[in-house]
Amino acid sequence: MPKISERAQSMPASPVRKLVPYALQAKQKGIKVYHLNIGQPDIETPETALNAIRNIDLKVLEYALSEGNIEYRKALQLYYHSLGFTDLTPDNFIVTNGGSEALNFAISTLCDDGDEVIIPEPYYANYNGFTSTFNVNVVAVPSTIDTGFALPPMEEFEKKITDKTKAIIICNPGNPTGYLYTKEELQKLAEIALKHDIVIISDEVYREYVYDGKQQHSILEFPELKDHAIVIDSESKRYSMCGARIGCMITRSEPIRNAAILFAQARLSPVLLGQIAATAAHDNDAEYIRSVREEYTKRRNLLVDLLNGIPGVICPKPKGAFYCGVELPIDDSDKFAQWLLEHYSHNNETVMVAPMSGFYSNPELGKKQVRIAYVLKEDDLRRSVEILNDALQKYKLEFNL
Amino acid sequence: MPKISERAQSMPASPVRKLVPYALQAKQKGIKVYHLNIGQPDIETPETALNAIRNIDLKVLEYALSEGNIEYRKALQLYYHSLGFTDLTPDNFIVTNGGSEALNFAISTLCDDGDEVIIPEPYYANYNGFTSTFNVNVVAVPSTIDTGFALPPMEEFEKKITDKTKAIIICNPGNPTGYLYTKEELQKLAEIALKHDIVIISDEVYREYVYDGKQQHSILEFPELKDHAIVIDSESKRYSMCGARIGCMITRSEPIRNAAILFAQARLSPVLLGQIAATAAHDNDAEYIRSVREEYTKRRNLLVDLLNGIPGVICPKPKGAFYCGVELPIDDSDKFAQWLLEHYSHNNETVMVAPMSGFYSNPELGKKQVRIAYVLKEDDLRRSVEILNDALQKYKLEFNL
Repeated sequence: MPKISERAQSMPASPVRKLVPYALQAKQKGIKVYHLNIGQPDIETPETALNAIRNIDLKVLEYALSEGNIEYRKALQLYYHSLGFTDLTPDNFIVTNGGSEALNFAISTLCDDGDEVIIPEPYYANYNGFTSTFNVNVVAVPSTIDTGFALPPMEEFEKKITDKTKAIIICNPGNPTGYLYTKEELQKLAEIALKHDIVIISDEVYREYVYDGKQQHSILEFPELKDHAIVIDSESKRYSMCGARIGCMITRSEPIRNAAILFAQARLSPVLLGQIAATAAHDNDAEYIRSVREEYTKRRNLLVDLLNGIPGVICPKPKGAFYCGVELPIDDSDKFAQWLLEHYSHNNETVMVAPMSGFYSNPELGKKQVRIAYVLKEDDLRRSVEILNDALQKYKLEFNL
Repeated sequence: MPKISERAQSMPASPVRKLVPYALQAKQKGIKVYHLNIGQPDIETPETALNAIRNIDLKVLEYALSEGNIEYRKALQLYYHSLGFTDLTPDNFIVTNGGSEALNFAISTLCDDGDEVIIPEPYYANYNGFTSTFNVNVVAVPSTIDTGFALPPMEEFEKKITDKTKAIIICNPGNPTGYLYTKEELQKLAEIALKHDIVIISDEVYREYVYDGKQQHSILEFPELKDHAIVIDSESKRYSMCGARIGCMITRSEPIRNAAILFAQARLSPVLLGQIAATAAHDNDAEYIRSVREEYTKRRNLLVDLLNGIPGVICPKPKGAFYCGVELPIDDSDKFAQWLLEHYSHNNETVMVAPMSGFYSNPELGKKQVRIAYVLKEDDLRRSVEILNDALQKYKLEFNL
C-alpha cells in the first residue's frame, strides 16, 4: 500500500464535514434538518448576477487570465475605490477560486515548512487546513467567550513572534466570533508587523456585514503596510454566491504579488463564469447589500435573544459576519452535534450545528461551544432554537449531565 | 521587506506567460498575433453546455459538495462506464477546479518535502509548478525529438526509483509531444509501480483526441493498480470549456481518496456552474467528440506537413492531444519567441509560440524547440506557418545563424 504523505495525514477533518453522513442519514429517515452549521446563506444571489450568466453570448468558455480578466479586476478596482482605497489599480488584485485559494496563495507565498503564523482563536476552522497543506504551524492567541471573544491586548500577539513567524492572520469581522477590530487594534498590529517585518493577512470577506451602525476598518487603511499587508476577499458572502468560487487576494506589495502570481499561473485560470456573475453583481452593489445587512441584523437580534433565553446558554452578541460562537450546557460539542443528527428529532425535525473544537488550535477549548450561522429565515431560526432548547433538555437527561 | 518563501522562489515562471507582455505590446502596435502557444482551442463549447448555463433557474449559487455534486459525479460515472470501467461509482471521483487542482491534490496526497516524482520529458511545463508548490523534485526520463519522442525502454523508469520516489506522472496522450502509450508500456509501468509500491498518476485529459484510428489506453485498465493509480481528468479540452474549471481526480483507492478529500474540504467547494455545464455536455458526448476529433485530425495533418516543409524544421507527427513539439533552426527558443512578438511582423501579423525550455527539467534540452498547438482553424494555421517560415529566414539573417 503506497504511503499517504505526512502532509495529508496532518490535515484536519473539517468539523462540519464529518457530520455530513449523519445529516444524510437523518434526511433518509425523513427528518428535516435545519442547517445552522455552515455559512451558506439562503439569501438570493443578485438577479443581475444570475442574469449575466443567463445572457452569456460566448461561443467558447475560454481560459481567463491567470490573474483574472481585466473587466472583473476593473470592477474590483471601482468597488475598492468606493471604499476609499483610490490608489488601487487592477494590478493590485489576483482573482482566485474563492477566498480559499487566496488564502492558499498568501500562505504559500510567505511560508516554508515549519514556519509559523499567529492567529487569534477561535478562528475559521479551514485556516488549519490551509496551514497544514504547507506544513505551517498555527500559534494561537486566545480569546474567550466570557469576554465576548474580546481580543487580548495587542502585545499578546507580539509575545508569540519568533524567527519562524511569517504572518498574523486575522478575520475581520470574525468567523466564528463576529469580532470587529477597532482602528486602534489594527494600528497596533500594523506597528508590530513593521517592527518584526512580518505580514498581516486580513480576511475581510464579511466586510459588508457589520451591525449597529459600526464600521469595518480594513488593513488597507494603513499605507505604511504597503509590503506588509494582504487582504483576502470573496464574492461568496457579499453576494450570496458561494458556489461561483470567486475571491481575490489584494496587495500593494510588488514582490508579494509577483510571487503569488506564479501560483496563479501554475493553475492556469480562475473561473470565467463566476467573474462574469461577480462583475455584474458589483453594478448593483449598494441597495442589495443594504437590504441584506438589514435582514442579517434582524436575524442576529432574534437569534441572540432566543439563545440567551435558554438556561445555561451563553451567546455574546456578534458585531459582524453571520455567526455566533455559543457555549452550551453540554459535555462535548462533537458528540452533541452528532447526537442531534443520529438520535434526536422533535416532530421529525432537528438542527445541525458546527462543533467549535475545530476552531481552536487546542480542540479542548471548544468542547462546550458550537458555531451557529444565522443564514436562515427568522421563522426557521425561531423553530431551530425551539428544537435546540428541547434537545438540550433531552441530552442532559440521557447523559446525566 | 518581508521574505518571500523559498517555495515561491522555486516556482518556475511559466514559459508562455512571460511572453504575454510582449504579445500585448504587439497588439497595441496593431499587429495581429496568431496564438499557437496555448491549449485554448477555438472549437465551440457544446451548445447543450452553454444552454444549461443560460437556463439555470437557481435563486442562490450555493456551495457544491466538496467532492462534487452527485448529479455531476453520476454523469462522470456514466461516461466512465461507457469507456468500460463499469466498476466505478460516484465515490471514485473527486471533482476539482480543473485538472490543475486534481494534480495538486494528487501530489499533496502522496508527497512530502524532498520527495521525488518521475516524469518522462519533455513534459507539461506546469508539472514543474505543482511539484515546486510542495517542494517535490522532478526526476526526468528523457525522450528526444529525433525518435519522435519515443519513450525509452520502461526499465529506464525503474532505474530512477529511489526511496524518495512516490509516483510516476505520465500524460497520455502527451502534452507537448502527442505521445500515446501502448498497452504494453502501461503494463510494464504497472508492474514497476506494484514492485516498488509507488503510484502512477496518469494525466488523461486529452484522451478523446487520438488519431489515425488508434486507441488510448487508460491506467484504469489495470485493476491490480487499485491502490496504485490516480487518473487526472478534465472537461477543459474534451468540451473546449477551459474557463469552466472543471476536472476530477479518479482513484479506486480508498486510502488515497480519503486523504485527498481533506484537501477538497479545506477549499470547501468546486465550481457549481461548471458542473452544471459539464453535466449537460456529457449528454451529447459522442457526436460532438467525433466531429472535433475529425477537425483536429485535419489540422494536425496540415500543420505537420507544412512545418516539415520548412528547411531545418523537424516536426514528428503527434498521435494524440493537439500539440506538436517542433525543432527549429534557431539558437534559443525563448529569445526567438520573444523576438517574434517584439521585433518582427509580416504584413502586420506575427505568431506566438511556446518555447520548450520550460518543458524539460533541464531547460537547455528545449533550447531549439517550441510547442505549437493546433487549436486554430486550417486557414489560420496555414497563414501561421507562412509567417513562421518568413520569420525564420529573417531571424537567421539578423543573428547570423
